[in-house]
Amino acid sequence: MTKNYCMCLVGFGNVGKAFARLLIKKKEELASRYGLSVTVTGIITGTHGQAINPEGLDLEQALSIADSGQNLNRLSTVDTPNKTHAFISACPADFMFETTPVNPQSGQPALGYLKTALEKGMHVITANKGPVVHGYQELTELAKKQNQGFMFESAVMDGAPIFALFRQPLVGANLISFKGILNSCTNMLLAMMEEGKSFDEAVAYGKSIGITETDPSNDIDGWDAAIKVSALVTVLMGVPMTPQQVDRTGIRGITPEMIADAKAYGERWKLVCSAKQEDGCIFARVAPERVGAESPLYSVNGTSSYCQFKLDVLPGLGILESDPGPETTAYGLFADFLNILEVA
Amino acid sequence: MTKNYCMCLVGFGNVGKAFARLLIKKKEELASRYGLSVTVTGIITGTHGQAINPEGLDLEQALSIADSGQNLNRLSTVDTPNKTHAFISACPADFMFETTPVNPQSGQPALGYLKTALEKGMHVITANKGPVVHGYQELTELAKKQNQGFMFESAVMDGAPIFALFRQPLVGANLISFKGILNSCTNMLLAMMEEGKSFDEAVAYGKSIGITETDPSNDIDGWDAAIKVSALVTVLMGVPMTPQQVDRTGIRGITPEMIADAKAYGERWKLVCSAKQEDGCIFARVAPERVGAESPLYSVNGTSSYCQFKLDVLPGLGILESDPGPETTAYGLFADFLNILEVA
Repeated sequence: MTKNYCMCLVGFGNVGKAFARLLIKKKEELASRYGLSVTVTGIITGTHGQAINPEGLDLEQALSIADSGQNLNRLSTVDTPNKTHAFISACPADFMFETTPVNPQSGQPALGYLKTALEKGMHVITANKGPVVHGYQELTELAKKQNQGFMFESAVMDGAPIFALFRQPLVGANLISFKGILNSCTNMLLAMMEEGKSFDEAVAYGKSIGITETDPSNDIDGWDAAIKVSALVTVLMGVPMTPQQVDRTGIRGITPEMIADAKAYGERWKLVCSAKQEDGCIFARVAPERVGAESPLYSVNGTSSYCQFKLDVLPGLGILESDPGPETTAYGLFADFLNILEVA
Repeated sequence: MTKNYCMCLVGFGNVGKAFARLLIKKKEELASRYGLSVTVTGIITGTHGQAINPEGLDLEQALSIADSGQNLNRLSTVDTPNKTHAFISACPADFMFETTPVNPQSGQPALGYLKTALEKGMHVITANKGPVVHGYQELTELAKKQNQGFMFESAVMDGAPIFALFRQPLVGANLISFKGILNSCTNMLLAMMEEGKSFDEAVAYGKSIGITETDPSNDIDGWDAAIKVSALVTVLMGVPMTPQQVDRTGIRGITPEMIADAKAYGERWKLVCSAKQEDGCIFARVAPERVGAESPLYSVNGTSSYCQFKLDVLPGLGILESDPGPETTAYGLFADFLNILEVA
């Protein structure tokens, strides 16, 4: 006898699609190990339409339609609103998974989607940093009031279980400070400069291979890193912080000479994220730093990310995530789902 | 209104004493954050006697007596058996914490102490690898039957929450392989050889500063690393394995020439622990390997330890514990206590 849960997917880009593929892959394991089955009853996308089928959408079919750039609408079996709030209200589901693009300034419209779903009585799971930074307290309180779950493991370091680590595994511990590499775009640009490219050449090459966005300032000027720092401070230190409050320096000032000088000393430039609690204040910072081979930060290559935590009970606990991708972010959503159900 | 739990401490060496100090340090936080208080009702040591006081022993006093090499017996308020099994039976407690020396061959007598305590209806928490490797299944089943907890977070990588990581945070994930540095003694001996010492000089110096045991073969021949590998395989892969089943090579064969040659290539020798599941078989290994600066293993210095996990859903998740000590092992015991009570 399996218990079935209905899911509504808001966002069906790389992460949303990877999540759908993971649900297909884990179908038998969910049944045999946890006595669970899942039905995706609705999907809404930015550019490929939306569909609701209360009996369950065929995920293979939905993936194939989205991958071929067609419109999901033809999978609908009921009247399906094309505005997201109305879609969420119309979709019969126990869980909403939100994977729409990040808005670092306000967390909207994702923050509003999560509220709508919670108010409707769904558990909500997001991979989006925006609502975490801009709505953590509000969403936590609303989820509690509604007796629903609100989880966001994939918002920082993809599927590496940073937030879950601070629940049971680090119970009774207090976070004093952390330091890490959380933005992969700048990490790869700095590596290209080590191979001899100028800053502009690295950015241009990054754009050509798709690791740097058309407007790369979100990464290069440290905003993406700052929003991750503020998410960690907000959740793990319990102190609300916006990206604007992070002391932030990007990598525009790093010259080939600086790269070469570091290399001559066996060191590398890294965009380092850090925060510490001291005398009741939080100092949060994103800035380029030189690190030597004796530092765990030195070997954080490519898209990998790393964060080292100092706690009152553990002087150093580092978490490294190597080679992440949409599949690892999708796993974070999947783990949140199982943790809301408390199967572990 | 706080709920009180009574604790029995079997073993009062560096770890047991650090645990007592942590209980003192966390007393107010336990009350305010979790509504809990604890009373240590019994302590038994290898060389400083034993004491039971059903009303609660004064921990400051017990620490001061043990630190000054005196006998705990004078703290007893009731007849206190000097044999451990009888002591456990006589001590009124909800939890037993076991921190006696490791016996890699059989896990005894610690394994027997844990059984006695479980049979008496106590939750049991150990920092000891022996019972995990030699009694994991038996103790897990007994704990389940008795409706008590059996936890051992500190058995591998001190207080770094390796085992807890694989409960909620990595729910629904399957471990495929791992690779790491788990023995700090050999890690430090190899570092000394990099500074120019021969193997024998490094061992002699290690003995003089207390990082190498009188009989160093447990570390040098890879037995300590092998027991850790077998504990991880047993628990995290769900396949019982003894240290004897690990393909094991120690560091006796590492010469100054090998160290120098690696250094010339920007590499270092490390005693690497690994295991992988393949076609239903487990391959587990402890052996020296050369690692370069691009590897996270390169920067694992001194007493730090590191383990990188490959899962079906995450290609690489690394955990680094820096600068551990008895205090971090004590935190693992403390976290186990809170996790058995499910406060997080």
